[in-house]
Amino acid sequence: MSFRSTILTLYPDMFPGPLGQSLSGRALSRGLWDLETSQIREFATDKHRSVDDTPAGGGAGMVLRADILAKAIDAAAPADDLRPRILMSPRGKPFTQQRAHELAEGPGVIIVCGRFEGVDQRVIDSRDLEEVSIGDYILSGGEIGAITMLDAIVRLIPGVMGNMESADTESFETGLLEHPQYTRPADFEGLTIPEVLTSGNHKKIAEWQMEQAEKLTRQRRPDLWEAYLSSEDES
Amino acid sequence: MSFRSTILTLYPDMFPGPLGQSLSGRALSRGLWDLETSQIREFATDKHRSVDDTPAGGGAGMVLRADILAKAIDAAAPADDLRPRILMSPRGKPFTQQRAHELAEGPGVIIVCGRFEGVDQRVIDSRDLEEVSIGDYILSGGEIGAITMLDAIVRLIPGVMGNMESADTESFETGLLEHPQYTRPADFEGLTIPEVLTSGNHKKIAEWQMEQAEKLTRQRRPDLWEAYLSSEDES
Repeated sequence: MSFRSTILTLYPDMFPGPLGQSLSGRALSRGLWDLETSQIREFATDKHRSVDDTPAGGGAGMVLRADILAKAIDAAAPADDLRPRILMSPRGKPFTQQRAHELAEGPGVIIVCGRFEGVDQRVIDSRDLEEVSIGDYILSGGEIGAITMLDAIVRLIPGVMGNMESADTESFETGLLEHPQYTRPADFEGLTIPEVLTSGNHKKIAEWQMEQAEKLTRQRRPDLWEAYLSSEDES
Repeated sequence: MSFRSTILTLYPDMFPGPLGQSLSGRALSRGLWDLETSQIREFATDKHRSVDDTPAGGGAGMVLRADILAKAIDAAAPADDLRPRILMSPRGKPFTQQRAHELAEGPGVIIVCGRFEGVDQRVIDSRDLEEVSIGDYILSGGEIGAITMLDAIVRLIPGVMGNMESADTESFETGLLEHPQYTRPADFEGLTIPEVLTSGNHKKIAEWQMEQAEKLTRQRRPDLWEAYLSSEDES
């Protein structure tokens, strides 16, 4: 069984978009995951096919209607569908590498892409949507968030990455930002590769890389550094 | 002068992708911003057009070469080009709504999309690339990060959003997550709209929305809540 993703959106033509190329595109062709879109507008009931209305209490923007969206969700995901139901939303829980691993190990995901000012709270409550955010910024809609989240998940599905693309030392996998990388040429505009890396001494190389990763994390991301130190204390 | 974006990538066909539709797509057609891609591979020097090599010191994956990427950057951005040069990287500074505003007010942006295990550190140093991350997860490359960042920036370019799409009360603009939204129908599967929102009492509505925003932020994002309290103390 491959990983099944279903996207509820007003812009189905945005998919697969960048996910149709490179690593995720090859995995899609190979059937390692599957992408299906559902056009929310098809569940509109009036002749204008409207899906939104003005916010209760006033204010700018338009709100996606609970009744229309609920019908779209029920059609895409019957009650016995065990896939997590995620609403892309800046109010959501921040998406992390840990969550990408969890989702990649599961049966798939149903993703609702909001637009406009937001989604009626009652559909979030009644259909048990989990709000997830990809970062502390506002996008024009949930579609690009869905693409981002799927890219992070898909590369972790077994069989998608080859050994050459192994992920073990990457940022966030170790709790640290990754050390700097170098490759040929040995001399680039007078800048050389740090000597230790060409020494052939694997122990010293590993020590240098760890030092660099720790230094970088401490400087750039004190929040990750604190979390790393706490987890070291526990282990 | 419109906002000019130049993307250095091995996958130029990923652009504009989802940015070609909806809000950012309309703004692109109207000339409010401009998107140009540069294929890094065109700057390769060998007959295989290779752009990467094995990491110094060993390890999995391949590293994007400093010399090839430097040539691509120099061709795309002469020394008098004042646009910020950003490298999408999980090691980077987290992208925020604040940074989106700053970039939207500037002349544009040059974005380098990494692939493989990383980019040779010497080109980051010598070409003064600013590493930016869209979140604490790993993507298959920088392209989807670039699309995400551009979507957040473009909607803030003057003239892109209409008044109906006004952004003032959105999450992160106030330092708080946004309050819940409701719209018609008044009754959805027995669930009603909170009475205060249909009271017509604007003062009470504003108070309720603020209470909800504060409660949500406190519950879901203690980190944002702490930052909000500190900024309140200062003002």
